Amino acid sequence: MDAEIVTIGDEIITGHITDTNSAYMARQLTAIGVNVRYKTSVGDSLVDMEEAFRLALKRSSLVIATGGLGPTDDDITKRAIVKVFKRNLIFHEEVLEEIKARYTRRGIQMPGINQNQALLPQGAKFFPNKHGSAVGICIAEQGRIFIALPGVPREMQQILTDEVIPYVKSLKINRHTHAVNLHTTGIIEAKLAELIAPGLKLEAGVKLAYLPSYSGVHLRIIVISDNAQEAEEKARKLVAHLESVCGKYIYGRHDDTLEGVVGQLLIDNDQTVSVAESCTGGQLGMLVTSVPGSSSYFLGGVIAYSNDVKIDKLKVPANIIKTHGAVSEECAIAMAQGCRKMFESSYALSVTGIAGPDGGTEDKPVGTVFIGLASAHAARAKKFVFGSDREVNRTRAVFAAIEMLRREILDIK
Amino acid sequence: MDAEIVTIGDEIITGHITDTNSAYMARQLTAIGVNVRYKTSVGDSLVDMEEAFRLALKRSSLVIATGGLGPTDDDITKRAIVKVFKRNLIFHEEVLEEIKARYTRRGIQMPGINQNQALLPQGAKFFPNKHGSAVGICIAEQGRIFIALPGVPREMQQILTDEVIPYVKSLKINRHTHAVNLHTTGIIEAKLAELIAPGLKLEAGVKLAYLPSYSGVHLRIIVISDNAQEAEEKARKLVAHLESVCGKYIYGRHDDTLEGVVGQLLIDNDQTVSVAESCTGGQLGMLVTSVPGSSSYFLGGVIAYSNDVKIDKLKVPANIIKTHGAVSEECAIAMAQGCRKMFESSYALSVTGIAGPDGGTEDKPVGTVFIGLASAHAARAKKFVFGSDREVNRTRAVFAAIEMLRREILDIK
Repeated sequence: MDAEIVTIGDEIITGHITDTNSAYMARQLTAIGVNVRYKTSVGDSLVDMEEAFRLALKRSSLVIATGGLGPTDDDITKRAIVKVFKRNLIFHEEVLEEIKARYTRRGIQMPGINQNQALLPQGAKFFPNKHGSAVGICIAEQGRIFIALPGVPREMQQILTDEVIPYVKSLKINRHTHAVNLHTTGIIEAKLAELIAPGLKLEAGVKLAYLPSYSGVHLRIIVISDNAQEAEEKARKLVAHLESVCGKYIYGRHDDTLEGVVGQLLIDNDQTVSVAESCTGGQLGMLVTSVPGSSSYFLGGVIAYSNDVKIDKLKVPANIIKTHGAVSEECAIAMAQGCRKMFESSYALSVTGIAGPDGGTEDKPVGTVFIGLASAHAARAKKFVFGSDREVNRTRAVFAAIEMLRREILDIK
Repeated sequence: MDAEIVTIGDEIITGHITDTNSAYMARQLTAIGVNVRYKTSVGDSLVDMEEAFRLALKRSSLVIATGGLGPTDDDITKRAIVKVFKRNLIFHEEVLEEIKARYTRRGIQMPGINQNQALLPQGAKFFPNKHGSAVGICIAEQGRIFIALPGVPREMQQILTDEVIPYVKSLKINRHTHAVNLHTTGIIEAKLAELIAPGLKLEAGVKLAYLPSYSGVHLRIIVISDNAQEAEEKARKLVAHLESVCGKYIYGRHDDTLEGVVGQLLIDNDQTVSVAESCTGGQLGMLVTSVPGSSSYFLGGVIAYSNDVKIDKLKVPANIIKTHGAVSEECAIAMAQGCRKMFESSYALSVTGIAGPDGGTEDKPVGTVFIGLASAHAARAKKFVFGSDREVNRTRAVFAAIEMLRREILDIK
């Protein structure tokens, strides 16, 4: 079954917000064997929306739209739907009651404007919305299924997961998709391709994609086949090849994250970690604690943004900063050591660098970052030179720090 | 001038990555008066890509594609381009030399696979890539302009800003767009609409959109007109109306961020801040320090994830945690006070809560967060009950904390 996703809103078309909904929807649909062929975004224009809906219904048998179901005047998706399907909007008392009840539970009186949201296309099926007042709309006609969901990510996600996916699964789908994600780190895309390409002949229906990110290069294997077992077997063979040629760079699979993998290693070894951050300002702690349950191995951290804090709280000797500077191997090591002592953790990670845009020198240009690691046995630091973008430098530094810990725990050189 | 953005890659169509490029491109294009009408995403399929290019060229006079210009086998954008425009790929020695030189500067020998990237469509104009080996491609034919850029965000952004935007500006554009963004916080979308809607009649060519986000609701005003002055005047009138009915919720305009606005307030008042974070694990510090130059007012922070750290480092009295729990108004106040003392800052912010997915109780469900603020004059805490999503709860808490500081500094009740 082919599908098209249509995301709606001037804020998307003008780039005011980044459309994250379509990626979420595509992942869920791909996982149940739906072939997402196109994604389209249109603004809050009735004409453009109608054209997009008509085209999508022409080229795909499943169309899922998001956005424009809110109560305000710029929410016109329903008007486009009734034009395309030549239907009327009908007032639904029971939907209004549900919206009113939601407001009452929150102790707020329903604003009158929400009345609009009880007007829904005639003959449509509705999907309840647990987190908001815009219900999902589903119209099946002439072998085509059209679904409209609200644009608020949390609401869209709930309706998609609880209602749309089970509904689509209940329809007959013939093609089987088997997807495997392998996550690598510490090697650039072109080098990885040079390890992988020789001797590799992709079987029919098998696709391999290289997806660079700040945490490393992800390898995405997709196999499409009429036979589920065959799809799985073809994927298995390719994974075996990849593991044989670049296994040491692979840290995880599927939804594994570097921070999650390292967290599990710490749990397995009954170890703990703490962090001392200068230029990343808390981002390393944030990433470590983004893992539910991280409180079992993450003890705490110090955001040592100023030199005074490095000296006073982390006990970095003042003469290290004087002699080598705060952005130095020596300072990174002393920060990690001081942090480990302060929190009495098995490991401590430290980050000190020049994130930019200012503060670079000839010796230490913007993007220079030292990452330190202290354990019971030793302390060391590694120098990285990233790029010129503040946000990217901070993000790369944070992943490099976690990777340094992974290699330490697994004793990978 | 109408434009369409086409983003390419199986990783986008399957939702493996979120397409951030199209939003960036749309912002840049909208800012110079280009009307982005559609955005389309296709996978690494020659047939689908050709269809998407042909359709885009039919409905818009400017088409910008990103992705699929890399060296590996899944990068087939150039093949689609030469099919659509019926041209050949030509080997460009000078482009290869430039790619080799880039590798040499990094101290790496060019992998052989990068040779592909010197094959470019006949008769195309090239845009140099400062950060990578894939050059931008531009074909002008029959009043249509087709541009292909690499998919790596940093590379796309550099070529777009340095080459494409000046090029597009050099063409004649008749319609003028005037956009104004107002950022509000502390009020939900429907309530905001009820303040704004009465007495509001939008003039011709004027659009107003409500864009809810975790930091608040953004108001986006777009005016399209044949006359630049008229567009500006219409926008000015609408902004004046918005300020008169909901001015106290507006914290900034255009690219203003809550963290940037508060940073500037601290600079203006010659004040400093420090943070004590439990459930946000460093995210508050990260957000505060995401502002370049934040070192002039951000002193540091403690990630007090465990109770021991709260007691030992932040000097939270153990009996407060025993009596009221670590997630309590009392604990948030004590954390902020301890933090302010530790860093000797003008203000200290603290966050303690239950981010989820586990740890909730009947009294304190997942999403319960206390935010504390200490100053020279007083210390207090505010309770929030967010939702069930860990990431969302942490993000909302961080913005609520910064907003609390903004209101404190500006003495807004």
